[in-house]
Amino acid sequence: MSLKAISAKDAASLDKDLMDMGGWSLDQLMELAGLSVSQAVWKVHPPSKGKNVLVVCGPGNNGGDGLVAARHLAQYGYTPSVYYPKEGKNELYQRLKTQLHSLSVPFTTDFASALSSTTFVVDAIFGFSFGGPLRAPFGEIVSQIESSSVPVLSVDAPSSWDIQSGPPKEGPGAKFMPQALISLTAPKPCVQYYRGRHFIGGRFLTKSIADKYGLDCPQYPGIEQVLEIGVDAEGRL
Amino acid sequence: MSLKAISAKDAASLDKDLMDMGGWSLDQLMELAGLSVSQAVWKVHPPSKGKNVLVVCGPGNNGGDGLVAARHLAQYGYTPSVYYPKEGKNELYQRLKTQLHSLSVPFTTDFASALSSTTFVVDAIFGFSFGGPLRAPFGEIVSQIESSSVPVLSVDAPSSWDIQSGPPKEGPGAKFMPQALISLTAPKPCVQYYRGRHFIGGRFLTKSIADKYGLDCPQYPGIEQVLEIGVDAEGRL
Repeated sequence: MSLKAISAKDAASLDKDLMDMGGWSLDQLMELAGLSVSQAVWKVHPPSKGKNVLVVCGPGNNGGDGLVAARHLAQYGYTPSVYYPKEGKNELYQRLKTQLHSLSVPFTTDFASALSSTTFVVDAIFGFSFGGPLRAPFGEIVSQIESSSVPVLSVDAPSSWDIQSGPPKEGPGAKFMPQALISLTAPKPCVQYYRGRHFIGGRFLTKSIADKYGLDCPQYPGIEQVLEIGVDAEGRL
Repeated sequence: MSLKAISAKDAASLDKDLMDMGGWSLDQLMELAGLSVSQAVWKVHPPSKGKNVLVVCGPGNNGGDGLVAARHLAQYGYTPSVYYPKEGKNELYQRLKTQLHSLSVPFTTDFASALSSTTFVVDAIFGFSFGGPLRAPFGEIVSQIESSSVPVLSVDAPSSWDIQSGPPKEGPGAKFMPQALISLTAPKPCVQYYRGRHFIGGRFLTKSIADKYGLDCPQYPGIEQVLEIGVDAEGRL
């Protein structure tokens, strides 16, 4: 199964359509996006494989999706922690932080230590709006994730990858290949360079919006908010 | 399994705590509440039993939960329709309507006809803030639902029931016993008069809030947003 990709520019336009014309608030979209991320984590790394999940959040909406996912993971019985070195200014992000504090989810400032004691990483650093280069501290963070053996799920795109042309030729991220990727709404063009388990989430796309952007409406099973669409390098679904 | 009940007054105070101190927006709470409702519908009445679901929405937040549920049901492949005779003024409700229009979910004004052609009803008319009496057109609506053989899931409380003392002694709702009930956050005292399948939803309660109000934290299975807690009159879970 493969789904048509959407460019970064169209992805931004689609989100704007959902909010300006479709009646959606960012709170609602992020809630469902983050919920999808948490369900993908459950499928790739159920609690039986380890409950310590480190959610690495960037300053924008990708990081916000990570904050929502961390909240759901805490509700599922994981013991998530969050690394959020460059907090977004949007009041929504501050509220998501408050929600995590209410669940006693720790925010760490020592990334190396957090990475060494986790069983899974959620890379919610950058999504489709990433235009490079990686600013501090994220170059160093991506390098550490890249050279770690801890499995990673990236949200929307492997952070450091160009949304169109994929992994950087050199430097942090050049050899970054997360074990799993969840594309939100539609895959981004860089998925052609990706090998690993691939999910799609964000179950709010309508047929009219899909048609406008030439996308497929994913056929999610039952009540699930996530659909596995990828085949990895060994040919397993 | 039984869970401690929460009074209408405490339920209102709890929601206020979540929003004033817990960092939640109404958009987020309603999204997860409505998602829970949609998952309970799936369990009670999967699409194989009939895809036509009539969602009856009242003017307040209970109706808003119904609107969110209708959207998720449309995404699941049901063909929901909505009866919403007294629209809430809150701009959130208007946005939820827009979202449903985008999914081509019809809003009906002919309740009797809609009821006769549906396979399932979601009663999202009144929740914990209901203080009676049933104002028009809801007295007539409850009477029609009550005398119909179509199975019903009520959201938070069977509409017309007093939140503390249960079904009215006479008039519309006196014999109303929906096949299923989903309590949001915690059961309301009137559940003691209820016999049928009973679910709990609203997976956003924290231990500190539960402790403050003397509630239980439901042990939701896996990634599910709904938990069946009830035993019906025949002793089936």
